[in-house]
Amino acid sequence: MKLGDLPTPCLVLDRRVLVRNIDRMAQAVGRLGVALRPHMKTAKSIDVARMVIANTAATVEGITVSTLAEAEYFSAHGITDILYAVGITPQKLDQVAKLNDAGAKVKIITDDLDVAHAIAAHRGELRALIEIDCGEMLGGISADDPNLEAIGTALGRRLQGVMTHAGHSYAGRGIAEMADLAEAERQSALTAVRRLRAAGLECPVVSVGSSPTALHARALGGITETRPGVYMFGDLFQAEIATVEPDGIAVTVLASVIGRRPAEGRIVIDAGGMALSKDRATESSPHDFGFGLVLDAQGRRSLGMSLVARANQEHGVVDLDRGIALPEFRIGDRVRVAPNHTCMTSAAHDRYYVVDGGDEVVAVWPRISGW
Amino acid sequence: MKLGDLPTPCLVLDRRVLVRNIDRMAQAVGRLGVALRPHMKTAKSIDVARMVIANTAATVEGITVSTLAEAEYFSAHGITDILYAVGITPQKLDQVAKLNDAGAKVKIITDDLDVAHAIAAHRGELRALIEIDCGEMLGGISADDPNLEAIGTALGRRLQGVMTHAGHSYAGRGIAEMADLAEAERQSALTAVRRLRAAGLECPVVSVGSSPTALHARALGGITETRPGVYMFGDLFQAEIATVEPDGIAVTVLASVIGRRPAEGRIVIDAGGMALSKDRATESSPHDFGFGLVLDAQGRRSLGMSLVARANQEHGVVDLDRGIALPEFRIGDRVRVAPNHTCMTSAAHDRYYVVDGGDEVVAVWPRISGW
Repeated sequence: MKLGDLPTPCLVLDRRVLVRNIDRMAQAVGRLGVALRPHMKTAKSIDVARMVIANTAATVEGITVSTLAEAEYFSAHGITDILYAVGITPQKLDQVAKLNDAGAKVKIITDDLDVAHAIAAHRGELRALIEIDCGEMLGGISADDPNLEAIGTALGRRLQGVMTHAGHSYAGRGIAEMADLAEAERQSALTAVRRLRAAGLECPVVSVGSSPTALHARALGGITETRPGVYMFGDLFQAEIATVEPDGIAVTVLASVIGRRPAEGRIVIDAGGMALSKDRATESSPHDFGFGLVLDAQGRRSLGMSLVARANQEHGVVDLDRGIALPEFRIGDRVRVAPNHTCMTSAAHDRYYVVDGGDEVVAVWPRISGW
Repeated sequence: MKLGDLPTPCLVLDRRVLVRNIDRMAQAVGRLGVALRPHMKTAKSIDVARMVIANTAATVEGITVSTLAEAEYFSAHGITDILYAVGITPQKLDQVAKLNDAGAKVKIITDDLDVAHAIAAHRGELRALIEIDCGEMLGGISADDPNLEAIGTALGRRLQGVMTHAGHSYAGRGIAEMADLAEAERQSALTAVRRLRAAGLECPVVSVGSSPTALHARALGGITETRPGVYMFGDLFQAEIATVEPDGIAVTVLASVIGRRPAEGRIVIDAGGMALSKDRATESSPHDFGFGLVLDAQGRRSLGMSLVARANQEHGVVDLDRGIALPEFRIGDRVRVAPNHTCMTSAAHDRYYVVDGGDEVVAVWPRISGW
């Protein structure tokens, strides 16, 4: 099967780029001497998880997930050491305990005293980390929050350590700033873990990491694992902040030309908001790529700054680059679109059509969605 | 089963609101004396399609769809008269012909002379409309485009008529402006069809319509059918432009509180970009609702202008309305989120949990996605 045979729109994954991205992160994490716990929220595919494990020389200490559906899927496929990195609610504890009863080792996170008591009182098998906020202002309490020891004490023997996530590193610019954010992330985790240990609580796990901070950290002394995810696929936004190389975007949307508007310098493609997502991650980055950068059918940047300027449900309106000579497009011609935000774009599709740089489809990998 | 028993995030469909919205449009279209060809791109559910057919007194002339996956799904469920309202490519003709060979009557659209020749030359059973652009600047040629007759002639006996879509009515404000846009939409279709008929071509179908123009058109003389869709569910954006009543939003996302940030006047919920979509349709409407308006667990607007201000992958950060006294939230408490754009939000989910205003789940309706 060739790319030209595929129905459009669909998602193409270039395995050669994926392997390069995995290698790059494996080397970075290897130098830091911590374990890698790759975040599978982007790929949501057992085939990709196996590629990461096979191609990472550093210890892979299980995986990270963003939904219980992912936890169920990956444990059913044999990856059972899982960190569910979204704050748990008491109502979700039964589902976690059921997975653990079936042999999984799902760790959950909380930053709340009531929930810590609910975790401690649950009759199932549960392991928890305390979520620390190192500046992302999403989940977690500050490392100097007065409730920290009380939450740890409430969790009791179910406490396994702490975790934090410098998601605000996505707003960082430049390698020095990323390294500083990684150090702040590390210090946050260490401050929290020192206080818990001083209170007599065991904390074997000290978990940090986003793709930018895992890649650019200068040192991770005291840390046991890091949890990058989006680095596997990359996207325009991550390329802008140098988490992936400019040619490190592994996932693109294959689309067909369905309209020509030569008077306006535009074409219309069959990848709109549904196939690309409406994510505008690059809106505030150095280059604003609209809803995605349009590449040629081979995935090359031969169309200059031709961008998806408008994304209706099933229509993407492409403003063609007027600065360079472009081929004339006919209805049915193919292009590919590099995504702003690969997590959101990939989630719009139920499978990856895998290529090794060329146009031969070498595998079809399913991916999951939902909760 | 009660709403309180459901895993979060999930999609709740209030059937009473759905029926009210269907009634309102049925009356509007009934007064206009045209057939309704409801667009199923929003609901993508046979159960919703059946509700529309059962509750619309005006003739329902089949349905409209936005993907071939929808065409396959609905025809497999017995609704075979289908308009696929996205410009066709030659590569997709085999799939359409296969559906028609199996008993469906799928009409396709084109605005391109080469494609018209490909349609005419195809050995399968095909029916086509010419797509006219009445100002949306997406698909279609202008009604005064010099190629119009040539396209019609190329289609030959496969030509069934014309269609246009005033999608730019979404940028309209006020009932008078919507009525003017509906009239312009009608004139565009009539101009094109007059030219084709003058060239000796038969055009039994003259198809128009978006939700705003179907609802607010003053008259539709010469038109045979209208194709509104989003009116069934409504959303914050459609309420802003008066396509649905303020209490006419039928679909909400049920979410759990997973974080409390009292110092910042915020809570965090487990409905982020994945569950809500990243659509920012209300960005340019009179009220900007961020990524959605937060309602209480019963779906009432008791939380003022509490908005999802930030949508990470699985985290929604809610800025609570500080102007009114709000209850204190605990982890695991439930809220509901009214969506900016119901087509995009619904597409993030694989089923509807149906209620009749209360908290009893009276049905679970699957929905489809993909292409």
